[in-house]
Amino acid sequence: MNTINRISLIGAGNVATHLGKALKQAGYSIIQVFSRTQESASELAEILQCSYVTSLAEISTQADLYLVSVKDAVLEEILPAIGSKNPEALFVHTAGSVPMGIWEGKASRYGVLYPMQTFSKQQALSFQNLPFFIEANRQEDVPLLQKLAESTGAKAYEASSEQRKYLHLAAVFACNFSNQMYAISNKILQQHGLPFEAMFPLIDETARKVHQVSPVEAQTGPAKRNDRNVMDRHLNMLAEEPELAAMYEQISHSIHQFSSDKNK
Amino acid sequence: MNTINRISLIGAGNVATHLGKALKQAGYSIIQVFSRTQESASELAEILQCSYVTSLAEISTQADLYLVSVKDAVLEEILPAIGSKNPEALFVHTAGSVPMGIWEGKASRYGVLYPMQTFSKQQALSFQNLPFFIEANRQEDVPLLQKLAESTGAKAYEASSEQRKYLHLAAVFACNFSNQMYAISNKILQQHGLPFEAMFPLIDETARKVHQVSPVEAQTGPAKRNDRNVMDRHLNMLAEEPELAAMYEQISHSIHQFSSDKNK
Repeated sequence: MNTINRISLIGAGNVATHLGKALKQAGYSIIQVFSRTQESASELAEILQCSYVTSLAEISTQADLYLVSVKDAVLEEILPAIGSKNPEALFVHTAGSVPMGIWEGKASRYGVLYPMQTFSKQQALSFQNLPFFIEANRQEDVPLLQKLAESTGAKAYEASSEQRKYLHLAAVFACNFSNQMYAISNKILQQHGLPFEAMFPLIDETARKVHQVSPVEAQTGPAKRNDRNVMDRHLNMLAEEPELAAMYEQISHSIHQFSSDKNK
Repeated sequence: MNTINRISLIGAGNVATHLGKALKQAGYSIIQVFSRTQESASELAEILQCSYVTSLAEISTQADLYLVSVKDAVLEEILPAIGSKNPEALFVHTAGSVPMGIWEGKASRYGVLYPMQTFSKQQALSFQNLPFFIEANRQEDVPLLQKLAESTGAKAYEASSEQRKYLHLAAVFACNFSNQMYAISNKILQQHGLPFEAMFPLIDETARKVHQVSPVEAQTGPAKRNDRNVMDRHLNMLAEEPELAAMYEQISHSIHQFSSDKNK
């Protein structure tokens, strides 16, 4: 039976950094970090107290698991060089929107380990209950990846490549796009000498609420009430920012539509 | 010197309900609830253990403070009838986007008490550190409103009507619009048999992060990286939802722009 102990980390970005730390803490042996950028490679290797390499040729042949966290564009390019390192090993990538099939013909045991979180290098992060979406070409490897994920405190789900595509899309809305709403809010406040901190209780409560009621039920504000007076005043205030005004109009319309659909 | 003890609540919606409960708990005496809708009026009066009325003529003349939380459109309409109830009393509304001047000529002591929060009737809510933005036509009334706000655990700030307009606009982005991003995320997940719960750690972390770093610094994802491959795949997945696709394009563009501005 296969087991996972020795892990080679391919990539030294935000995801690789957080995963590497969590897996090391869970008792796995991180044997090597690869990154083309010497600085990133050495920095992460120091944190994980392991060696690092910057050329594909030097990647170890001794790992049980090759964990690949690199930019989607780089992924395809480096797969052939990695997949041939160890014919017995398991090869997984962490990209939400890249299908598992990308490994086909490049390795015999492969899969995906997709952590649903927004990783920033400088921010500490708890893995407790973090959802990991798992897929493997050999069903026997699914429990290995589940065990790996759960050893960090995370919650493991199985998801097909098709489902994972939509998970990633949904995450872009829930995370990147809601964060951009915060960024626009911050910009408006700064322009008028107001502190962004004043938004924290509102931001926190908005996030908290949807744990208990659906976002459509939780919605409030002028668009939900279809309060055209307020919306027109807001659009006037954004007259010098046509892009923001267009966004205001579009999202307000979407809110009103979702709210009407619910009441049908 | 004026003091506030007896409060008449004009309106029985989400904001009036939460404010009424918090002020009663802080020791103020809520003497009456007004709402044109008998059901809302009686429901809130029961919670606050006070009387209620459904016609403007019956509103008490005995309050020290008239706290008006009604829809913006209704506000203008009912002001003259309320402002004449008690020439000694203080009259405030809670609307973010309505200027204080709306009271001019309708009352002699007036102001605004704007709680920056998203209120849902059915959701319990802590007032601890909740920002209240305060304005009054007589500077002596500012400390009275500050004391009132702080008695509930809230944090009082002074803000002009002009600043409050922008606060409200900023709140629409930070709250209503980010919540709509959750709603769209939920819709995409439902369509593909995936649980919205899987987004909670991501949503929470996105909200938590901006307490420590600015939203632009906190940003991650394909738009920030300008990863056109991923964005094009996502747009294809939204082909049957042209409105969502247009929104995806627009917000991604905004993310990329904010991120470029930062690096200039």
